[in-house]
Amino acid sequence: MLSKAQISIVNALQHKKFRTQHGLFIVEGIKSVLEFVNSSYQVQKIYATAEAVTKLGKIPHKIKLEEVSTHDFEKITALKSPQGALALVELPKADAALSEDVLKGKHSLVLDDVQDPGNLGTIIRTAEWFGIRHIICSIGTVDAYNPKVVQATMGSLSRINIHYLPLEDFLDKYRLPTFGALLDGQDIYATDFGNEGFIIMGNEGKGIRKSIIDKIDKAVTIPRIGDAESLNVAVASTIFCSELTRQKKYPK
Amino acid sequence: MLSKAQISIVNALQHKKFRTQHGLFIVEGIKSVLEFVNSSYQVQKIYATAEAVTKLGKIPHKIKLEEVSTHDFEKITALKSPQGALALVELPKADAALSEDVLKGKHSLVLDDVQDPGNLGTIIRTAEWFGIRHIICSIGTVDAYNPKVVQATMGSLSRINIHYLPLEDFLDKYRLPTFGALLDGQDIYATDFGNEGFIIMGNEGKGIRKSIIDKIDKAVTIPRIGDAESLNVAVASTIFCSELTRQKKYPK
Repeated sequence: MLSKAQISIVNALQHKKFRTQHGLFIVEGIKSVLEFVNSSYQVQKIYATAEAVTKLGKIPHKIKLEEVSTHDFEKITALKSPQGALALVELPKADAALSEDVLKGKHSLVLDDVQDPGNLGTIIRTAEWFGIRHIICSIGTVDAYNPKVVQATMGSLSRINIHYLPLEDFLDKYRLPTFGALLDGQDIYATDFGNEGFIIMGNEGKGIRKSIIDKIDKAVTIPRIGDAESLNVAVASTIFCSELTRQKKYPK
Repeated sequence: MLSKAQISIVNALQHKKFRTQHGLFIVEGIKSVLEFVNSSYQVQKIYATAEAVTKLGKIPHKIKLEEVSTHDFEKITALKSPQGALALVELPKADAALSEDVLKGKHSLVLDDVQDPGNLGTIIRTAEWFGIRHIICSIGTVDAYNPKVVQATMGSLSRINIHYLPLEDFLDKYRLPTFGALLDGQDIYATDFGNEGFIIMGNEGKGIRKSIIDKIDKAVTIPRIGDAESLNVAVASTIFCSELTRQKKYPK
């Protein structure tokens, strides 16, 4: 049976303040939990119903697995249709390993204050599909370890590196070509993205901040054929990831 | 002051049964309401707070505009952050005008049982950005006049034609080339989409039904570089719309 203290800690992890304090975040769902178990993340503990324990199969001994009743599980899940498996995973250490070497020869996404958890989750899932290895987020970007983001990534969060950094400093330090998604720029399909660089996407309402626009080498635009006023930021990020992939697969 | 009957009708329009019964759907938000006012849709009535009346500006005389208190408005809005403007819009007549002529020479989207309102809304908004004129939905697809869908289209619903039809009959009747988004098919970036056809997208969990797969001329795949197991259907639709646009703008 779950103690009040256990329930209280898991529920507290819905909030960033307590995630930072405990150094933990929540992953829910059989498949997502297994993907984190099989990743470089450290899974500290798994709570699972009897049914979910069977579905999870063999879990490494070093990970504590506690079977809980369905009734108890309902006290810790944040999902409307819970799958009976919830893992407490250690937040990654602030990435001291980020270096020019790691970023060179590839494209990375840079997000300036993306606010919506669903958008960030979709961006992470889509970027990972297209083989992006690093996403650099401004300090003001929604927390990638927010349970809603984790959920929306469908496990992809376990295979991609997320860095929260002051973007001005980051872009000053790592001098790869910068491409910014702006309404007035060069047609994305006519833009040569080369073999490395940063693709910068802005906030849902405000776009990219002026201080970051100043550091963009090339403004790039997704051509509009209809009359829609804007594209969702996850949709725009998708189009950039897709076009990068196309150019790499089918160079001119 | 709003009568109980008025409040009851607006609230009932959250449900498809009552939308069909009254022949009406709800549009919320200053910008979205104005986009429907300026579209081919018939706006029957607008409820707006004093502040929203000012923001809406000049509304054609034939549209009834009723000013309501903020307190009353809270009884009819379904939004967490309401903007004080809500329109009752007439459902379009079942489109007798759909013909081969209307569909020829362009690409249309065909959705097979897309379930999530947010996904359908994003697909409509994105398709409209890229100049798609028609979306044909299976009978099992979520209702495009569901308030959550309307909201997610950000006004784009007012400028695109949505048709709900039994897809098997539709594809038998209109014999344009059919491209299906499948996990095992030709690379999308190496696929020549020509100048017309149907792009078929499947359900979030189950993909495209077997009876529809049988009618696909060309299976098309979005290449996967990373390890994500799947792409969100709105994301996949985005990639198809983007690639169609690129091929039209930059023919080989």
